[in-house]
Amino acid sequence: MTDHERNIYLHDIPMDEAWARLIGALQEAGLWQPLPGEEIPITEALGRVTAEPVWAKISSPHYHASAMDGYAVRSKDTVGATETAPVLLQIGTPETVERPAQPVNTGHPLPPWADAVIMIEHVQPTADGLLIRAAAAPWQHVRPMGEDMVATELVLPANHILRPVDLGAIAGCGHTTVRVRRRPLVAIQATGSELVMPGEELQPGNVIEYNGIVLAAQIKSWGGKALRLDPVPDERERIRTAVVEAAAAHADLVLINAGSSAGSEDHTAAVVKSLGELLVHGIAVRPGHPVIMGMLHVDGRDVPVIGVPGYPVSAALTGEIFVKPLLEKWLGIPTEPAPTIEGELTRKVLSPTGDDDYLRVTVGKVGERVLVTPLSRGAGVITSLVRADGLVRIPRFSEGHNAGDRVTVHLYTSPRRIDNTVLVIGSHDLTLDLLAQFLAERHPEHRLVSAHVGSLGGLIALRRGQAHMAGCHLLDVDSGQYNVAYVQRYVPGKAVRLITLVGREQGLIVPKGNPKGITGIPDLARDDVAYINRQRGAGTRLLFDHLLAEAGIAPEDVRGYDNEQITHLAVAAAVKSGQADCGMGVLAAARALELDFIPLAAERYDLAVPLEHVEAPSVQAALALLAGADFRAAVAALPGYDVTHMGEVAAEIAP
Amino acid sequence: MTDHERNIYLHDIPMDEAWARLIGALQEAGLWQPLPGEEIPITEALGRVTAEPVWAKISSPHYHASAMDGYAVRSKDTVGATETAPVLLQIGTPETVERPAQPVNTGHPLPPWADAVIMIEHVQPTADGLLIRAAAAPWQHVRPMGEDMVATELVLPANHILRPVDLGAIAGCGHTTVRVRRRPLVAIQATGSELVMPGEELQPGNVIEYNGIVLAAQIKSWGGKALRLDPVPDERERIRTAVVEAAAAHADLVLINAGSSAGSEDHTAAVVKSLGELLVHGIAVRPGHPVIMGMLHVDGRDVPVIGVPGYPVSAALTGEIFVKPLLEKWLGIPTEPAPTIEGELTRKVLSPTGDDDYLRVTVGKVGERVLVTPLSRGAGVITSLVRADGLVRIPRFSEGHNAGDRVTVHLYTSPRRIDNTVLVIGSHDLTLDLLAQFLAERHPEHRLVSAHVGSLGGLIALRRGQAHMAGCHLLDVDSGQYNVAYVQRYVPGKAVRLITLVGREQGLIVPKGNPKGITGIPDLARDDVAYINRQRGAGTRLLFDHLLAEAGIAPEDVRGYDNEQITHLAVAAAVKSGQADCGMGVLAAARALELDFIPLAAERYDLAVPLEHVEAPSVQAALALLAGADFRAAVAALPGYDVTHMGEVAAEIAP
Repeated sequence: MTDHERNIYLHDIPMDEAWARLIGALQEAGLWQPLPGEEIPITEALGRVTAEPVWAKISSPHYHASAMDGYAVRSKDTVGATETAPVLLQIGTPETVERPAQPVNTGHPLPPWADAVIMIEHVQPTADGLLIRAAAAPWQHVRPMGEDMVATELVLPANHILRPVDLGAIAGCGHTTVRVRRRPLVAIQATGSELVMPGEELQPGNVIEYNGIVLAAQIKSWGGKALRLDPVPDERERIRTAVVEAAAAHADLVLINAGSSAGSEDHTAAVVKSLGELLVHGIAVRPGHPVIMGMLHVDGRDVPVIGVPGYPVSAALTGEIFVKPLLEKWLGIPTEPAPTIEGELTRKVLSPTGDDDYLRVTVGKVGERVLVTPLSRGAGVITSLVRADGLVRIPRFSEGHNAGDRVTVHLYTSPRRIDNTVLVIGSHDLTLDLLAQFLAERHPEHRLVSAHVGSLGGLIALRRGQAHMAGCHLLDVDSGQYNVAYVQRYVPGKAVRLITLVGREQGLIVPKGNPKGITGIPDLARDDVAYINRQRGAGTRLLFDHLLAEAGIAPEDVRGYDNEQITHLAVAAAVKSGQADCGMGVLAAARALELDFIPLAAERYDLAVPLEHVEAPSVQAALALLAGADFRAAVAALPGYDVTHMGEVAAEIAP
Repeated sequence: MTDHERNIYLHDIPMDEAWARLIGALQEAGLWQPLPGEEIPITEALGRVTAEPVWAKISSPHYHASAMDGYAVRSKDTVGATETAPVLLQIGTPETVERPAQPVNTGHPLPPWADAVIMIEHVQPTADGLLIRAAAAPWQHVRPMGEDMVATELVLPANHILRPVDLGAIAGCGHTTVRVRRRPLVAIQATGSELVMPGEELQPGNVIEYNGIVLAAQIKSWGGKALRLDPVPDERERIRTAVVEAAAAHADLVLINAGSSAGSEDHTAAVVKSLGELLVHGIAVRPGHPVIMGMLHVDGRDVPVIGVPGYPVSAALTGEIFVKPLLEKWLGIPTEPAPTIEGELTRKVLSPTGDDDYLRVTVGKVGERVLVTPLSRGAGVITSLVRADGLVRIPRFSEGHNAGDRVTVHLYTSPRRIDNTVLVIGSHDLTLDLLAQFLAERHPEHRLVSAHVGSLGGLIALRRGQAHMAGCHLLDVDSGQYNVAYVQRYVPGKAVRLITLVGREQGLIVPKGNPKGITGIPDLARDDVAYINRQRGAGTRLLFDHLLAEAGIAPEDVRGYDNEQITHLAVAAAVKSGQADCGMGVLAAARALELDFIPLAAERYDLAVPLEHVEAPSVQAALALLAGADFRAAVAALPGYDVTHMGEVAAEIAP
C-alpha cells in the first residue's frame, strides 16, 4: 500500500466533526434519543434510569397516623388543662365516655373521632382515668394522611438514576414496579489472528484479548449491557459474518476491536462499508487515531458501529470519549463530567498540534502545591491508565506545555485521595512497591505513589518541592559515606532527615547459567558482551561509573553503555529478553525474573525527608510502617536485603 | 411503662461512645478487620476490592513487539542512510542476505536478529530491494518486552476497588482470576405486625415494608450482599427465632428493623440481650435515636447486630451513618467522604442541643450565592431524602443556625448539577411539577427545584436573591390586575419580567358528592363546616380573604381558618381524609384526588423573573419549554387550566 492509498482509507478529522457525522446519522435513523422503557420490579431497579415520571399512586401515610406512643384524644376535650388544673380523660370513645382517650402506638391509625395525640410521658394514670396537665393542639403528634406524598403527586422525574431512597419512595406511594430505560446492548467483536484468551498458552506475537474485558466492564459501569462475542481472526469475510450476527442480536451498538487502522490486516473499514456507511475513518485524537464510525444496515435495522483501535490505552479512551456519551444519550442521563483540579506540570510535554491529546497523569499535593506528573504516553501501556489520577486534555493547535505550566486535570481519583498521597520520587527499589502495598493494606486512607527518576532526580525534586521524600543510594567516593554529601549539595536550604530503608546488594544481572561467563566488571570491556545501563542520575549508574573507573575501563569501551532503563526490573527484563547480556541491579530483581547474579557491592538505600514534610499524616503513616515488625519481616524475606538499620535516622542534615 | 422504666431501656449516648462500644466488641471478637478473600474470574470482578496485591505473572508485552507496520531491521545495517545516500535492504534474514529486512505489522514479534523497525511509509520498494533514506536508531518503533509490566512487578495494591482498566491490566499480566474480598453478607429482618409487602392491600394502620428495599439497595451499592428475610410480627419469640436463623445464615451483620425503641411492641433490645450483649440502646442522633447495637452469640459465632429505627428517614440514615462504615472496614476500603459545598441557610433551624442532627437540605445557586434550604424534618418523610441535595450536620451542643449562617453541606448531588438548577420559590402549582418533569426529559443536564412558600413568600425570596423565579397569582383588589403591584411593592430595585404560566380556575374543594351541600363562600360561616386554609402569603389565601370580605364574613367566623396547608394537593388531601369539609384550591387538585369542586374565580398565574437571571442557561431552558407546543398541550390536558397566554410577557416591571 502506498502513502497515497493510505490517505484514502485513513483520514483523520477533528473530534467535533466526527461527532457531528455520527450524531447526524443517528438522528436520521431516529436513534439519537433515549431508549424506550421497560417495567421492572422495584427491588431490581437500583442504578437504573426512570423512563417516565413516577407519580404517587396512593398517599403516604394513607391514613392519619399517630406519630408517638400515647393516647389519641379530641383536642377540644383538653382545652384549659394546666399544671394546677389538670383535666381527666377516660379510656373509651365519644359514645361511651365524655372525654375519650384511646391508647395508640407510633404508626397506629387515629380513631375517626380523634384529632390529636398526647405522648405517654405526659399522661398520669389514676384510679379515675388519665390526668393531663397541658392542652393538646389540634393535629399534635399526628402524621396527617399525605404528609410524605399525596396521591397523584410527582415523586420522581424521568431520566433519574434510582438510588436506594428513591426505591423506598416508589414503593411507599403504592408501586411494585417502575418503568426504567432499557439498558443499551453493546456487542463487542474482538478481531485479530494474534489474539489468545486469558489463560491460554502464549507464543511470541500472541496478544492476550483483554480489551473486550475492559470495554465490557466500562459499558456495564455506564449502565449498558455488554455482549462479548468470540474473537475472529483477521479475515474480512469472517469479520463481516460476525458483525452481521452481532448487529442482528439486537445490539444498539457494535464495537469492532481492532483492525481499524489501514494496514494489510485491517478490515474493519471495508466491512463497515460493505454493510452500510463508513462515516469516519480516523479521528485526530491521541491516543486513539484510527477510530472508525459507521452505520450498519442489517436486517432492515440501522445499527451504529464504532471501530475501536487495538492498543489498550486507545481502546479504553475510545470507550470513555466516544462510547460513554452514546450510552448517556440512550439512557437519558446528563453527561456528568469528572471533577477537576488545577495543578502545575512537573515536566515539559510536547503534543502534536493536529490532535486532541489526552495525557495520563498522576497528581500529588506537596505542601500547598498540586503537582501533575505525566505518565508513559505509550498507547500499549495499560498501567499508565491504571496508575493515572486523571487526564490532561491538550487541545488541537496546542504544541504542549512547559514544566511549571498550570493545567486542568480531569480526575479519576477523588481530591481527598490526592491529599492523602505520599509522593516518593527518586531511585527505584522493590521495597518501595512493598511499602506502597503495606500502606494500602494497613492504612487504606493513605497511599504511596512513587516515580522513578534516579537518586539524583529525586533530590532535585525535593529541592523543587515536588516530593515528600526521595529514595537515594548515592556513594560519595571521597568520604565513603552514603547520601549525606549529595543531600547537602542538591537540596540546599532545607533541613532534611535521612532515614534508612534498607541495605542491599548490587551486582551484575546475567542470564540463567551465565552463558557468557561474566565474572565481574572487567568482562564488560569484551566485544561480545552487551550491557544495559541505568539512566543518568541513578545511584546504580554512579556506582557503576565508580567501579568502571576503579577497573580502568572507559564508558565508550562498554557496548550498550548508552542504552538505558529506569528501574532494576526493567534492566532485569532487558537481560531476560536477550536485549542485553548483563546489567547492574539488585539481587531481588535478578531473582524475580529467575536470572543469575554476580554480587559487586553492598550499599545503603535511604529515604530523604525534608523536615517540613515529616509531620504530614500520610508521611507519618508510611514512616510508622518502617518501625513495625511486619514490614521489616516482609523485606527481610526478599533476597539481598539487610533490614538491620531499617527506620533508623542515618543523619539530620541542617539547611 | 413509666418514665423511669423507659430510661432503663432506652438511654441515648453520644455517637462517638456508641461507635467505641461497637468497635470494642468487634475487636474482641476479631471482627474489626477486612474479610478474607475469594478467587473470582476477572470478568466478574468489576467494582470488587482486591484482597491482596496483584503481581505481574508474565511481562507485557511478553516479547519484543513491533510498534508499527513496517520492516524489522538491524540498526547497524542502516547506519549512514540519508536522503542523498540511501541504503538498500533486502527481504530476508542474516543467513540469506547481507542487510536483511522482514515485513512486520504492529504487534508482530521482532525476529531475534532485529533490533529496530522502520515504518512502511519510510521504505521505498524498488526492483532490487527496499531503499531507506534515514538510519534507524536501536530499538526504534519497538515495544520492548516488559514495556508495560515486568513479571513480578506490583500491578495493583490490596484494598483497591477494581475499575475497567484494572481488569485489563490484571488479564494483561497473565492472570485469569483475581483475589477479592468476600462481599459482607447483611441479613435484614423486618419486624412489625403492621407491615404489608408492596402491592398487598392496605388497611388503616398498615405500613408498606419498604425500609428493607432501601437497606438492601444501600448495602448493594456499598459493596455488600443483602439477604432480606420475610417480615415477622411483633412477637418476641418469633423475632428471636428469626434473628437466630439470620445469624446462622452466615450473616456478617444482622439488621433488625424496627422495634428498637422502648414501646410495648419494641422487642429488639430484649431479643439482642437474650442472644448476646446489648451494647447500645439509643444514640443521640437525629433522626435516628432508637438505634440498637449489640453482639449476638449464635452457634459459637459472634455476629454484630444493629437495631434500625422504623421511620424511613431514620432507617436510611442509620444505614449511611452506622452500616456503611462497617462494610467499608470489612471490604478494606477507605471511607470516601461526600463532596461538600459551603452555602448560606435560607431559614432559621433549631436543633436539640443533645443530639448530632442531620438536616436534609436542597442546594441551589442564584448568581454567585449558594443557598441552602432545609427540607421537612419529619422522620417519616422519605421524600425529604429523595429531594435532598445533601445533609447539613449540626453537631451536639449546637442549638442550630440562623438564616444567613454559612453551613457545610455534604452533597448527594454533584456540584455541577447544583450549578444547573433553576430555583423556583413561591406559590405551588401542579404545572410547575410538570415543568420540572419536562425539563428532566428534554434537558437532562438541567433541573427545576421548587419550594412552596406562597406567592408573597416567593416575591420576598426574589428580593433576597434566593430564587431565579417566583410563581405568583396575587390579585390587586384596587386595580383588578394580577401580580404587577405586588412585584413593585415586594421586589423593589430589581427589573422583573412577568411571564404568564397559566390561567386557572380557583374554587372550593369538597368531598365527592358534596355531603354538606356547600354552594359558595357564605356556607363557610356555618357551624358544621370545617375549612382548611392555605398559609399566610399564599395567593389562594389572599383571594379567599378577598372573597370573604366581599361576602361580609369575618375570618373568626370560619371554623378551621387557622388550620393551614402549603399546597393545593395538601388541601385536597385534608378534604379527602375528612380532616376538613372544604378548602380552596385549583380544579386540578380536586380532580387528582377525585373530589368535587365549586368554581369561584379565574386567575392568572405568572412566573416573576428578575432580568438578572433571565440569561442563566437553566432558566433559559425552562422558559423555552413554555414556548413549545408539547408542554402547552400537556398542561391543556389538565382540568381547569387555560394555556392561551402561556409564555407571554405579561409585564416588564422597571426597578
